[in-house]
Amino acid sequence: FVRRVMCNGTSEDSLFSVPLEHLCPPLQSVVQVNFFCDYEESKGNYLVDVDGNCMLDVYTQITSIPIGYNHPALTKVMTDPKNMGTFVNRPALGMMPPEQFFEKLVNGLMAVGPKGFSRVQTMACGSCSNENANKAIFIWYRVRAGPWISGVLLFFFQVPGCPDLTLLSFMGGFHGRTLGHCNSELKTCSLLTGPSPPFPQLRYPLDQFERENAQEEACCLEEAEDLIVKWNQKGRHVVGVVIEPIQAEGGDNHASFDFYRKLRGITKKHGCAFLVNEVQTGGGSTGKFWAHKHWGLDDPADIVSFSKKMLTGGYYQKDGFQPDKVFRIFNTWLGDHTKNLLLTEVIKVIKTENLLDQSKRSGKVMLEGLYDLQDKYPHLLSRARGIGTFCAIDVKDEDTCNNLILKARNKGVVLGGCGTQSIRFRPALVFTEHHAHLFLDIFNDAIAEL
Amino acid sequence: FVRRVMCNGTSEDSLFSVPLEHLCPPLQSVVQVNFFCDYEESKGNYLVDVDGNCMLDVYTQITSIPIGYNHPALTKVMTDPKNMGTFVNRPALGMMPPEQFFEKLVNGLMAVGPKGFSRVQTMACGSCSNENANKAIFIWYRVRAGPWISGVLLFFFQVPGCPDLTLLSFMGGFHGRTLGHCNSELKTCSLLTGPSPPFPQLRYPLDQFERENAQEEACCLEEAEDLIVKWNQKGRHVVGVVIEPIQAEGGDNHASFDFYRKLRGITKKHGCAFLVNEVQTGGGSTGKFWAHKHWGLDDPADIVSFSKKMLTGGYYQKDGFQPDKVFRIFNTWLGDHTKNLLLTEVIKVIKTENLLDQSKRSGKVMLEGLYDLQDKYPHLLSRARGIGTFCAIDVKDEDTCNNLILKARNKGVVLGGCGTQSIRFRPALVFTEHHAHLFLDIFNDAIAEL
Ligand code: FES
Repeated sequence: FVRRVMCNGTSEDSLFSVPLEHLCPPLQSVVQVNFFCDYEESKGNYLVDVDGNCMLDVYTQITSIPIGYNHPALTKVMTDPKNMGTFVNRPALGMMPPEQFFEKLVNGLMAVGPKGFSRVQTMACGSCSNENANKAIFIWYRVRAGPWISGVLLFFFQVPGCPDLTLLSFMGGFHGRTLGHCNSELKTCSLLTGPSPPFPQLRYPLDQFERENAQEEACCLEEAEDLIVKWNQKGRHVVGVVIEPIQAEGGDNHASFDFYRKLRGITKKHGCAFLVNEVQTGGGSTGKFWAHKHWGLDDPADIVSFSKKMLTGGYYQKDGFQPDKVFRIFNTWLGDHTKNLLLTEVIKVIKTENLLDQSKRSGKVMLEGLYDLQDKYPHLLSRARGIGTFCAIDVKDEDTCNNLILKARNKGVVLGGCGTQSIRFRPALVFTEHHAHLFLDIFNDAIAEL
Repeated sequence: FVRRVMCNGTSEDSLFSVPLEHLCPPLQSVVQVNFFCDYEESKGNYLVDVDGNCMLDVYTQITSIPIGYNHPALTKVMTDPKNMGTFVNRPALGMMPPEQFFEKLVNGLMAVGPKGFSRVQTMACGSCSNENANKAIFIWYRVRAGPWISGVLLFFFQVPGCPDLTLLSFMGGFHGRTLGHCNSELKTCSLLTGPSPPFPQLRYPLDQFERENAQEEACCLEEAEDLIVKWNQKGRHVVGVVIEPIQAEGGDNHASFDFYRKLRGITKKHGCAFLVNEVQTGGGSTGKFWAHKHWGLDDPADIVSFSKKMLTGGYYQKDGFQPDKVFRIFNTWLGDHTKNLLLTEVIKVIKTENLLDQSKRSGKVMLEGLYDLQDKYPHLLSRARGIGTFCAIDVKDEDTCNNLILKARNKGVVLGGCGTQSIRFRPALVFTEHHAHLFLDIFNDAIAEL
């Protein structure tokens, strides 16, 4: 597979030889469409567009392609005739699972489950994973708290619309785009309000600002604990704390592992469930399968949600979070077993090809390269940061950031933004040091043109 | 394909030859699992379990198998090598759709779109379809109402958690199990509160109680309109009305077509968007592709949501409901293009095999058979009702209802309940008169044993 260089694009913002209007009748919003892709021709780290342009993909469908395009292990799943029935007949997994359902869970999701979690609940996307994890926390609390308005269908809250149970989520957190998420700063559409302390605004590189950062984190933790106490006093019980190990949509905001360890301590002290949202961080790109493993805790969480690179959605939960009654956590499909089949192979590949180590090595090249670039272009770039290949850098302003993403694309690298003026790097796990160097070269050229 | 008779089951509630504990380690809640299935061996209207028992399926994975198990048109999609890339590389459809994405929408979803709808937005399940339809209504209202707190990420409500915009939904309605739905009576977990008038409690058969039913409906419509006026006066604007053409989860509650026509008039009078939730009713089982077509209106709805039999989720919307800015209706995957590929074939089969007419014919046999059975067993059965094969019947109490479902299963018919004591019949579109007779015979035997 030879990487061809981008060759068309008469104007920089039009990569299409066919006018966009011909490709997209006004059926669906297309303004956010970057370009159309040829997924049959794409391979490994390279995404091919409909004009045959082949681009190094450092965005991977918003972080959701685990082992590159058209990995042979996955095409094999598709050509195995005994998997046919799974792909054409979608079961209601909660009621009539296929014979191999639990076996695939054991060899798939449970084989990479965080230590201490004996249970997994499959879902279909990041939104329903977090929504149902929230529900599981409310149920856990109500069941412990004694008799409650009950039935197969249930009322969480004493007064509908005025929830007396809340979840704490830091400002800038992001947990999905349906209506019941506790997104704080990015309050896209949340109906579920709760306390929202500031998330630490750290200085990077972290190891050069340890003292300042520790102070900042201490303030945020203090405010978080204060808010839990105050909301509890108001009768709006903070029954859980929801957090990402790295705030991704919010701008790739890191906090130290120590911050998370202390926060976990606070949740235990105040009887809050701790939901760690690994929808974007999970699956290996930080160099560990779960980003929370970096914290080094024996009991890091009560629930860990996932999706994206895991292909299916869902969450791991401790025993106590299993609802007391049937149908409390339920929907028609409860996930998609075809994704479990593919995930089982993804996990085998991660293990046999040692891709967690690969992420560490490539990440090292990436981050060092980003440090060099911000030294070289200090007026343009700042705050290079990352763990494994899960890296980001800030650009001086939003327009320059968007412009840089466009220039990189025209030079053959697909990137995505986050926050207001950050670029997030989200390669697949098969991204090697070679690809990291290639990316850095092209990125350097794009910056030089600004 | 020969229908074998159920042959095992030493005790009625254990259809397994292998103890359930061996099949399901305690990974996931299994109490709601009916039995494990062999989806490779299942075919057409017959679902085969892991013991080789072959059952006539009148529940079809909670209404979600459109043209039966392993239809050759669908297995052909899977064996076409040019579809491989779609199945192993899941695109972020909102940003980097595959080349054929819009073509598949045109030949798939748009080919069966309700008249007057020029746009479709794909989603992945019924929950996100309805949640995002709700969001589209809020955005539509805010944009029309003039300047609002804006940005790519947005605030719908003036005060988070205290929404000043509401949706009306009738008691007993059901629109999903995430937190932001406006389920009323079945308030499983709703955070979105709004007025909730009673849904008509009709007497069946509808044509024998026209006068009484018309009175009941008039009362409900009056209360609905009163509530809209009152909530608007309180400053909690009723910006939309959400309804199913038949309340399905709530117990297969019907209302007359005239009720819906009048309700549509009320929404127009008060400037409310009208969201018709066809997640369960859509796809052909009522004898029309969309149940709302029975109302005979030129302008039946503003948004029509779907999922289940449509394989993908999503909603049709009028032009005005397209958000003004990008990323307002968005998520990572925005559906699953593999389901669009399969759906395009499903739609061809429905057309070439004339399956809407088939549903009408089979539905006639079903409903007449159900009338006969309730005449024969008036102490056990009542309220037989239905349109097309979308039928239901009430059983005298909840225990008897569950017992009857179990007896039917042991005799080789898969059924599902709804409401508190109703059985809902939800065969695939390939369910013929022959299958209807077969079902009625076995159902009769099961009732006789009660
Ligand atoms: S909400 Fe997750 S698939 Fe619909």
